[in-house]
Amino acid sequence: MSSHEPVTVIGLGVMGQALAGALLAVGHPTTVWNRTAAKGDALVEAGAVRAASVADAVAASPLVVLCTLDYPTVRGTLEPAVGQLRGRTVVNLTNGSPAQADEMAAWVTGHGAEYVDGGIMAVPPTIATDEAFLLYSGPERVFAAHRETLEVFGEARYVGAEIGLASLYDLALLDGMGFLFDGFHHSVAMALSHEGAGAEEFTGLLVRWLANMAKLLPALAADIDADRADGTAPQYTQGLDVQLAGQVNILRAARDAGVVDTVGLEHGKAKLEALIASGLTEWSSPVSVRQLRAGPGN
Amino acid sequence: MSSHEPVTVIGLGVMGQALAGALLAVGHPTTVWNRTAAKGDALVEAGAVRAASVADAVAASPLVVLCTLDYPTVRGTLEPAVGQLRGRTVVNLTNGSPAQADEMAAWVTGHGAEYVDGGIMAVPPTIATDEAFLLYSGPERVFAAHRETLEVFGEARYVGAEIGLASLYDLALLDGMGFLFDGFHHSVAMALSHEGAGAEEFTGLLVRWLANMAKLLPALAADIDADRADGTAPQYTQGLDVQLAGQVNILRAARDAGVVDTVGLEHGKAKLEALIASGLTEWSSPVSVRQLRAGPGN
Ligand SMILES: NC(=O)c1ccc[n+]([C@@H]2O[C@H](COP(=O)([O-])OP(=O)(O)OC[C@H]3O[C@@H](n4cnc5c(N)ncnc54)[C@H](OP(=O)(O)O)[C@@H]3O)[C@@H](O)[C@H]2O)c1
Ligand SMILES: NC(=O)c1ccc[n+]([C@@H]2O[C@H](COP(=O)([O-])OP(=O)(O)OC[C@H]3O[C@@H](n4cnc5c(N)ncnc54)[C@H](OP(=O)(O)O)[C@@H]3O)[C@@H](O)[C@H]2O)c1
Repeated sequence: MSSHEPVTVIGLGVMGQALAGALLAVGHPTTVWNRTAAKGDALVEAGAVRAASVADAVAASPLVVLCTLDYPTVRGTLEPAVGQLRGRTVVNLTNGSPAQADEMAAWVTGHGAEYVDGGIMAVPPTIATDEAFLLYSGPERVFAAHRETLEVFGEARYVGAEIGLASLYDLALLDGMGFLFDGFHHSVAMALSHEGAGAEEFTGLLVRWLANMAKLLPALAADIDADRADGTAPQYTQGLDVQLAGQVNILRAARDAGVVDTVGLEHGKAKLEALIASGLTEWSSPVSVRQLRAGPGN
Repeated sequence: MSSHEPVTVIGLGVMGQALAGALLAVGHPTTVWNRTAAKGDALVEAGAVRAASVADAVAASPLVVLCTLDYPTVRGTLEPAVGQLRGRTVVNLTNGSPAQADEMAAWVTGHGAEYVDGGIMAVPPTIATDEAFLLYSGPERVFAAHRETLEVFGEARYVGAEIGLASLYDLALLDGMGFLFDGFHHSVAMALSHEGAGAEEFTGLLVRWLANMAKLLPALAADIDADRADGTAPQYTQGLDVQLAGQVNILRAARDAGVVDTVGLEHGKAKLEALIASGLTEWSSPVSVRQLRAGPGN
């Protein structure tokens, strides 16, 4: 396909607007549709064509990109346009689970269209920058045919033919992100118990600290792979007693600092205690991953 | 003090060994002591003097650095040496809470020594590298007198005279780190439900994603500061409905992927539901921090 393949974008929330805007910026004929039409005004001013109906929107382009709240709203939005789907490619960038991606693929292909599922690893302001990457899964041939267009949004990473893979990795990454933000809020909530503390100044330390700690993750991941492959003992270990002593200190200090939501900290403490009760002395990532799959007390 | 100030290091676990090793490497006369003496063997070979008793260890240097399991073991270790403390400076780099730092300061200064509390933001292999930073609190004059020596371990950041501050910030940063590691394990546990997935390859994506998301934290922190200062509405918001839809997807996908420990995800969902039930529509960091202090259901 040429770099000026016509594209339809359905769903013009903050993310859909960023996607359509990126296409327009590089010259793609872009048709847009959104339940609340006014959210397309700026895009129309920038050169987009507003479709009068979702059926017209689907009919306008060989490639139809969707980005709405969730999969039920994607399905509800596309229902009135099923007659127009045949021969087109649907790329669904809405957040959903692998099971939902399977269902959606069956439904879309059942109506004669190709289906690629995607996950957006970016926030709207970084769409079409070097920072953005998107995960795609589905038939490789279909992905390849539209790759050049999809690269407009950010690096297009094809993760496999199994349709649920993009969702699985997307949600796994968002899971990690959720913990990052929770940790940020927790950390700042503790630090701000000191009246002289500033969140922004403290966050400078936190970002530096987390960046350093994130450098350890590839080695921990290698331990996890080795453990799966042949049960090799991990290279990186740390005494569970030191870990637990630290966790108890964090918990006490958090409470003293007025942080009353300590569910995560208590759960972390219980998990360390369960590992120690099971006779282990060293913390390790392979063990932590197994523990997540076996439950904290097993 | 000269850069060759004599130093005593008490507690030769993996961290204490790294600290003493760093001092020896730049030429400090270094005396060491550890409950299990053999852990000092490599240091003695590298030029350290092994004290016969903890009292001898304290008597050997004007600056005494402690790094053991926790504060009770610091106190227990120093007890037989109280007669030697007068006139010396004790820098305690053991993990502890602000309340424990207060207690320890009172006890040490009660025996005629100066006391500085510290927190090590590094793992042993990065001690004495550019990556390492350490937080210190206590009398500024005492810190300043030993700053040059302390810089050997890594960047020495003085955070204030209030003795508990280094501990508070240390534990707050470790709190954030705990969430980072939990998120890593969760994320990988989900991804590995796909047989073809490799932890190391997936972690490459995760580290990239988290680094991008961490770039958002300073702006979120500025929102928190503005909220504390004058209740200014935050700049960065996101729809709580989109957040909740995503959280539900993560939770379902995690369960489908065989992750049975979903305490953190369920708690995150409950917190989003509580915010929505309270009438809010936009996610924001100031609100999240307030929620941590008010409890998830309030
Ligand atoms: N924002 C981000 O940082 C980000 C990052 C990665 C992925 N995503 C994903 O991108 C998708 C869109 O998110 P967003 O941030 O753009 O959210 P948003 O600004 O709240 O937009 C939501 C979109 O969904 C539509 N919608 C909601 N309910 C609908 C319904 N019942 N029928 C038809 N359309 C409906 C909205 O239409 P109306 O305008 O008519 O309400 C709007 O187009 C989500 O799946 C999200 O997880 C977002
Ligand atoms: N390792 C890290 O990555 C790291 C990072 C930042 C901060 N820290 C902090 O540094 C401190 C030491 O940690 P580490 O990693 O070096 O742990 P470690 O290798 O397990 O060493 C623990 C030290 O505490 C001593 N100890 C334990 N129980 C004792 C007792 N009852 N009486 C006297 N001494 C006792 C041990 O002496 P024996 O050798 O006789 O058992 C050893 O010297 C902890 O507070 C930890 O939180 C560690």
